[in-house]
This record gives sequence, C-alpha cells and structure tokens, in this order.
Amino acid sequence: MAIKSLQDLFVHTLKDVYFAERQIVKALPSMAEKASDSELKKLFQTHLEETKGQVDRLEAVFGLVNERPEGEKCPAIEGIIAETEELMSEIDDADTRDAAMAAAAQAVEHYEIARYGTLVAWAELLGHKDAAKKLAETLEEEKSADAKLTRAGQRKLNQQAA
Amino acid sequence: MAIKSLQDLFVHTLKDVYFAERQIVKALPSMAEKASDSELKKLFQTHLEETKGQVDRLEAVFGLVNERPEGEKCPAIEGIIAETEELMSEIDDADTRDAAMAAAAQAVEHYEIARYGTLVAWAELLGHKDAAKKLAETLEEEKSADAKLTRAGQRKLNQQAA
Repeated sequence: MAIKSLQDLFVHTLKDVYFAERQIVKALPSMAEKASDSELKKLFQTHLEETKGQVDRLEAVFGLVNERPEGEKCPAIEGIIAETEELMSEIDDADTRDAAMAAAAQAVEHYEIARYGTLVAWAELLGHKDAAKKLAETLEEEKSADAKLTRAGQRKLNQQAA
Repeated sequence: MAIKSLQDLFVHTLKDVYFAERQIVKALPSMAEKASDSELKKLFQTHLEETKGQVDRLEAVFGLVNERPEGEKCPAIEGIIAETEELMSEIDDADTRDAAMAAAAQAVEHYEIARYGTLVAWAELLGHKDAAKKLAETLEEEKSADAKLTRAGQRKLNQQAA
C-alpha cells in the first residue's frame, strides 16, 4: 500500500497494531502456562482476554474509517515476541523466568502504548472522533496492564528471583 | 550465556540494551538527514549525541558490576528499526514521512523506557546502587526524548501532514 498522506499512514499503523495484537493473542497462552507465580499467571490470562477485546475493538475502528480489517506484518512485535520466547526457553529457574517474562510483557505493553498514543493523536487530527475514542480506551488498558506488571514485579516477582 | 539468577538476567538485559543503543546510534543519522522539518531534524541530531552518551554510561555500568561491555543481539530493536527504515523508504511526501519518523522514534523510546525501567528495578534489588543511579539517569533522558517528540508532533508535524 502506498502511503501518501497522514490518512494512509494512520490506516497503515492500524494494520500494524492489528497484526501485533493477534501475535500477542498467540503468544500469551504459553506465557500464562509457563508462569510459575500464580499472580503473574492470572495477569497473563486476564490480559489475553483483554487483548482479544482489543482485536475486536480494532475491527470496529476499521469499520468506522471505512477500511477492511487487515494485518500488516510488523517486524517490531515479531522481534519483541521472538526475544521473549528465546528467553523463556533459556531460563530454567522458575523465579528468574517469571521476572524475565514480566519484563518482556512490559516491553510489549510499551510498544503498544507508543503505537496507540500515536493512533489516538492522528485519529483526532483526521477528524475520526469515534475511532479516537475507541483507540484511547485501548491505550488506557495498555497503560494499566503495564502498571500492574510493575506492581507485581515490585511486590514479589523480583524479590523471589533475587 | 546461561541465565540462572536475577543477576544473570540483569547482565543479559544490560547487553541487550547496549546492543540496542549502538543500533540506534547507527540509525539516527539517516533519520536526521531525511527529516524535512527543522525541529525534528534537530531533535534527532540532539538525541544522537545523547544516545552516544548513553552508550558510554552503559559501559560505566558494566564496569560497576564487574562485567565486560558486550552486546547481545536484540531482535526487538532490530524489528523496530527495520520497520522504521521500511516506512522511511516507502513514503515520498515529506510531511507524512516526518510524522512517520517521529512516531517510529517514539516506539524506540518506549522500548528503551521499558528496558531501563526494568534495569533500574533489578539493579536496586541486587544492591547495585551506583549502577541503578546511572541507569535511572538514562531512563529520565528517554522519557524526556519521548515527551519532546509528543510535543513536536502535537505542535506541528501532524498538522503539516494532515
């Protein structure tokens, strides 16, 4: 797809996060399975359901801007997930692996915070008010997921691993 | 390197960001060159100098924890940079490309914010007080770079592209 305007760039980035969210839906079950700490396991399970809702919300956003939901290969999220899976397979100690997975999940959240922050700004500028509102809902969910991981890390994951 | 403890994971992650920072040092000159808006160009140039300082600071952190500065291939940053370069080459319109580059740079900043946030927490937990202090300095620089990009985007880049 040729990108010639901010509208094109907005749609391109929507497709990028749509691809990313679906990769995350695929990655989270094995992270939940491998998590040893019950709180971390629960966080991953809850975030899996939340992410499925974010995929649905993106599909609604595509509809609002008269585009078909379609993914655009996103090397960034592929790299972040590849790094996570490599680390998960390399660490035998359960507490250390939990700390690594929580940190990796925060890298994923921050990627999404950056992208949704951009998408909200562009949607507003382009006059897509309803789309901007929906994207802002997801942005808040991602920030909250990141904050929960920080708290879980501070409260025990890192202490268990130290 | 086998990862068996939080200390190992900390050193592994240091190597990951050391690799990442050096990739960013390589990527920023062409972003600065391609930026059409003079403010964005200046932001990239300034951040290049700041990033070189962050590489030096990481080398000092390696010294503080008795490790040799060494990079560990980081697929996450490679993916983020590959995506940026692909977009830069695909967009002919200068204002749209500026908006895309500013957004891509924010994805890079957020990756680093996630990683340095984790590194500061782990350094404190492991008793590496001086290392934690240095890592926190970089964390603040990355947050500030991200905020500057947000302001530049709001003030004019996105408007120019819309």
